[in-house]
Amino acid sequence: MDAEILAVGTELLMGQIANTNAQYISSRLPSVGVNVYYHSVVGDNAGRLRKCLNIALERSDVVIMTGGLGPTKDDLTKETVADVLGLKLILHEDILDKMKAYFSRTNRKMTDNNIKQAYLPENCIVINNDNGTAPGCIIEKDDKVVIMLPGPPSEMKPMFEDTVIPYFASKSQYKLASKFLRIFGIGESAMEELIMDLVENQSNPTIAPYAKEGEVTLRLTARCKTGDNVCDAEEIIKPVEEEIKRRLGDYIYSTDNKNLEEVTAELLLQNNVTIATAESCTGGLISSRLTDIPGISKVFNRGIVSYSNEAKIENLGVKRETLEKYGAVSRETAREMAEGIRNVAGTDLGLAVTGIAGPGGGTAEKPVGLVYVALADKFGVKVKELRLTGDRGKIRRITCLHAFDMIRRRILEWKENWQ
Amino acid sequence: MDAEILAVGTELLMGQIANTNAQYISSRLPSVGVNVYYHSVVGDNAGRLRKCLNIALERSDVVIMTGGLGPTKDDLTKETVADVLGLKLILHEDILDKMKAYFSRTNRKMTDNNIKQAYLPENCIVINNDNGTAPGCIIEKDDKVVIMLPGPPSEMKPMFEDTVIPYFASKSQYKLASKFLRIFGIGESAMEELIMDLVENQSNPTIAPYAKEGEVTLRLTARCKTGDNVCDAEEIIKPVEEEIKRRLGDYIYSTDNKNLEEVTAELLLQNNVTIATAESCTGGLISSRLTDIPGISKVFNRGIVSYSNEAKIENLGVKRETLEKYGAVSRETAREMAEGIRNVAGTDLGLAVTGIAGPGGGTAEKPVGLVYVALADKFGVKVKELRLTGDRGKIRRITCLHAFDMIRRRILEWKENWQ
Repeated sequence: MDAEILAVGTELLMGQIANTNAQYISSRLPSVGVNVYYHSVVGDNAGRLRKCLNIALERSDVVIMTGGLGPTKDDLTKETVADVLGLKLILHEDILDKMKAYFSRTNRKMTDNNIKQAYLPENCIVINNDNGTAPGCIIEKDDKVVIMLPGPPSEMKPMFEDTVIPYFASKSQYKLASKFLRIFGIGESAMEELIMDLVENQSNPTIAPYAKEGEVTLRLTARCKTGDNVCDAEEIIKPVEEEIKRRLGDYIYSTDNKNLEEVTAELLLQNNVTIATAESCTGGLISSRLTDIPGISKVFNRGIVSYSNEAKIENLGVKRETLEKYGAVSRETAREMAEGIRNVAGTDLGLAVTGIAGPGGGTAEKPVGLVYVALADKFGVKVKELRLTGDRGKIRRITCLHAFDMIRRRILEWKENWQ
Repeated sequence: MDAEILAVGTELLMGQIANTNAQYISSRLPSVGVNVYYHSVVGDNAGRLRKCLNIALERSDVVIMTGGLGPTKDDLTKETVADVLGLKLILHEDILDKMKAYFSRTNRKMTDNNIKQAYLPENCIVINNDNGTAPGCIIEKDDKVVIMLPGPPSEMKPMFEDTVIPYFASKSQYKLASKFLRIFGIGESAMEELIMDLVENQSNPTIAPYAKEGEVTLRLTARCKTGDNVCDAEEIIKPVEEEIKRRLGDYIYSTDNKNLEEVTAELLLQNNVTIATAESCTGGLISSRLTDIPGISKVFNRGIVSYSNEAKIENLGVKRETLEKYGAVSRETAREMAEGIRNVAGTDLGLAVTGIAGPGGGTAEKPVGLVYVALADKFGVKVKELRLTGDRGKIRRITCLHAFDMIRRRILEWKENWQ
């Protein structure tokens, strides 16, 4: 089946937000045999929306629409779809009840506007929304499928995963399976040189590299007929994956498309390795990413964002002489911060970061982008000096990646030496 | 003039990247009198690209294309545009010379493929590319304008700013100016009820609400003839803006499209109000967002991510009895955390957060989404109880917004009572 994603919202045409919904939906559909050939965006305007919908229905089997399901007058998606497809909008009492419950649960007042959201086209498959007020729906009409989902990603994603993906999975003749190898510590060109011959001779699976900030992802994609026992996408991918792993070794940190903080948190949790953090230039970014992971409280004891020298001295036990002699951004301070937080928290690992994220504060000797990452355990402290480029945000984000990678590699070293 | 942005690239349809080029271009065009009515994305496929281009030329005066100008066989944009418009591709010797110079300057070898990039449609306005090898161009044909730009944002943006913006500015009869009012603490429907009559009677400026996670933005857009001294877009917006401000009061936190952490950080910095944070469920997200702001070290002293009871006791001075009697997630613990961090850091403000972000850890009495935000100053502590919905990430992000809003309101109260 060929699909088009049609986003509705003037805020997209004004450049207030990027169309990340189209990106998300596109990344997920191939796994259930749906190919995305077009994205379109149109504003909150009934005439233009109608035209776009007609174009989409002519060239695609499936039209997935996002946005325009809100309670205001601007929100026209349902009305326009019903009109184009010749369907009536019906009040769903059960949806209205759920909405009332949602408002009372979140201590908010339901307005008359919201009642509009309980209307959906006749005979559609309702997609419940547990994170907001606008339900979605799947409409099957004349060999076409039209799906409406709300615009906010936090509402759209669970609805898409819980209802839309299973809906297509049950219909699909082909399936694509992708495996994502995620790589840190080696650049895209250097990596490509190591696997050049594999990339050049690719057929099934295909191999596609993609570089993003500080890291590289390799996507291996195999195509199989469903119900065909001879063809197992996983088996097609396996030999190529093994060869790439042999060549890239521990630059590969995940074969499950997990990000570096997830992989690191899993290693901490699986091995019951406790940790505490002391952050200067990253200002809590490392601890906030670690604590994004549910259950991390079992191993994450505390974090200190030691933005002032006093905090470094009082909360971490960094020596005043060290700060005076070497400065807050130095190998020596990083070392004492890591040892300090480990002692204070009584954890297996103490991680510390100090650096100059910019844009101000750099000197010839200590330029913007100079960062020290230190990791202490009972055998000592290791300090890594980084020279990063980019703006403040990028320097902070890449520092996080290096910090997580240090933790990951240290736990893997422990495990390896024990076996 | 009405414009459409047509992006070419299978990587967009695979969801590997979001179409941030469309967002950027859309945000810039209204200022030079060009209205964006459609975005489209199509893959590296000549047949489908041709169809999309024909649709765009039919419904829009201007088509801005991004991507597909590279040296490989996949890159089809120029060939397809030339074909559709009936133009020849001509080798531009001067572009070839520039490309050769670019390769030698960046120490790279130029391949035969690259020569293809020196061909452009006859009679077009060339857009030089100082950051890559693919030049762009502007084609004027039969009252339509087609513009081609390369896909990488680091190449596209300077070309767009240096050539495309001046091109339209010189032609424009109208210009649009927008003002963004950002609102926190009131839902989209409740807000709309307060300004319903203004929305219904809108003409110039137009008023468009947009809800995103936890907050609402109102966009006011005025349209003016260029060169017309009587018409000043700012002046057209002003009375409507004043009326909205009168009705929504301090729910409006920014009239400059700044986000809540920027506004809060500015208030802290402008008034030299020092602060320290104690975070439990947000795990450093508040401090990491505050420290995104350059120069914040002048007022941000430290943050404690007190993920364990020990950290709450040792680093913040929370009483063990309080934790035992009321629990870590309680009004009482939040209060002691806020007072504690303020005492430890010696700052004007102490902000604390404790809650259950989920997915585990909730009980009937203390469900997932129960969060306490506390703010201590020399006059006492204020604790706010929140009942949030959504996943772990959303609960953490919305908690941050409430925390920043408490700080913002407290500083405004101080200032108001002083004047």
